[in-house]
Amino acid sequence: MLELYHHGSSVCAAKVRLCLEEKGLSWQGHYIDILKGDQFDPAYLKLNPKHVVPTLVHDGQVVRESTIICEYLDDVFPDPPLKPGAPLERARMRIWTKSVDEDLHSGAVGALTFCSSHRHTVLRLPDGDLQAFLDAGKDPAKRARKRRWVEDGLQCEDGRNAIFAFDKFTARMEEQLGETDWLAGDAYSLADTGATPYLMRLEMLKMSGLWEENRPRVSDWLARIKARPSFQPALFEYLPADLLEDMNTNGAKAWPEVQAILKEGAT
Amino acid sequence: MLELYHHGSSVCAAKVRLCLEEKGLSWQGHYIDILKGDQFDPAYLKLNPKHVVPTLVHDGQVVRESTIICEYLDDVFPDPPLKPGAPLERARMRIWTKSVDEDLHSGAVGALTFCSSHRHTVLRLPDGDLQAFLDAGKDPAKRARKRRWVEDGLQCEDGRNAIFAFDKFTARMEEQLGETDWLAGDAYSLADTGATPYLMRLEMLKMSGLWEENRPRVSDWLARIKARPSFQPALFEYLPADLLEDMNTNGAKAWPEVQAILKEGAT
Repeated sequence: MLELYHHGSSVCAAKVRLCLEEKGLSWQGHYIDILKGDQFDPAYLKLNPKHVVPTLVHDGQVVRESTIICEYLDDVFPDPPLKPGAPLERARMRIWTKSVDEDLHSGAVGALTFCSSHRHTVLRLPDGDLQAFLDAGKDPAKRARKRRWVEDGLQCEDGRNAIFAFDKFTARMEEQLGETDWLAGDAYSLADTGATPYLMRLEMLKMSGLWEENRPRVSDWLARIKARPSFQPALFEYLPADLLEDMNTNGAKAWPEVQAILKEGAT
Repeated sequence: MLELYHHGSSVCAAKVRLCLEEKGLSWQGHYIDILKGDQFDPAYLKLNPKHVVPTLVHDGQVVRESTIICEYLDDVFPDPPLKPGAPLERARMRIWTKSVDEDLHSGAVGALTFCSSHRHTVLRLPDGDLQAFLDAGKDPAKRARKRRWVEDGLQCEDGRNAIFAFDKFTARMEEQLGETDWLAGDAYSLADTGATPYLMRLEMLKMSGLWEENRPRVSDWLARIKARPSFQPALFEYLPADLLEDMNTNGAKAWPEVQAILKEGAT
């Protein structure tokens, strides 16, 4: 049995749901509401000490980290294959999944989402609650970062860097898609699975101008992604409607600022 | 033909040389002296736009990123295998190689080496040269970081975090090695290959007290690593003697400070 501990707004959980759908695997879901703090529940901490989603449990065995979970699913259920057969294309696939993890996940997607959208929810808190939010947490460096995200939004270094990271990533996609139909080669692979939730996050933030304005191959790639039966259930079935609405509204307001930052260029 | 663009002091290059030795593959080396700036040579930049070593060229095809190069070598030359056969162990192997890349490489090994050793070479520069070193580079955030590394050494946030990252990593190794002989299971794998150059960097900095004092299983693991025929040629054949000498001397002086920071604990 496959069990997935997941949440509707997590890009990493969406990645694994996409992989499960692509393989036509049935799974039992355990919804971890990360907006309510379910990830800190002692029972979940045993499964995932880093208190993040998703976690896969396969016949009682725990597998963590979405990129590794996807490779695992492809190792255990190789049909249909989501890794290219040719080693060189497989290496290219891993360059993409590594870049998703290191360039978009660690440094960019959280900062971009918070600085353009969640920040506004926080700023609407009553004074005392806002102060409590800013003061929470033991690590002074993390507290200072949170304060910059709240106070400076996209203008802080993390916010600007996040925009540049997504810009570079989609530029590289545009280049690759001039050579191959999909990111790793001529077949859909885990490289495409991995990138999808991140581009969709930008679309939810109404920032898809990043490719719609001048990266036609990325637009075409995303249209092909959306046409796959895996797309709708993996990306939208679990997404909280109010969260999507907030991202739509706040992100749309932030788009002119994103464009201005892109025009100024990396500092 | 296998060609490796590499350097003697790069942990990532050592990782790939270890993998090549473990597989008994012959290769032609191209030495990129990163201390002299060879990595910025336009011909090398074509092979590796991020100007880092190593780069593998296999029959004219370029493969980048040491962790991905090792997976590639194992895909193309599967005998002897360096990936476990069982998917669950393979996932565990990738948890380790991902942690090496994200926890030790991106955030820790460079900061630790610079803040404890290279820093002293820089501080001995004549005033004008020191100022030129500090002023070089376009990115103000990177310049500010360099100044903190030079001025504050291990006491800066990056220096302290690097020490905690290595401490956590070796603690996790000790735990895993209580369950299995090697990091991914009962056979040597790319997880062990990946961790080796990082622990050896600490040993070169005379900081192996991090495990010799209270992590006997890590000490035993490293002894078994050193007994493998791959070890000596991969780790020492290309290492510049003066660099090793500097790391030995400066690192030994820094060790009491490392111990004090560990005792204070994470901020």
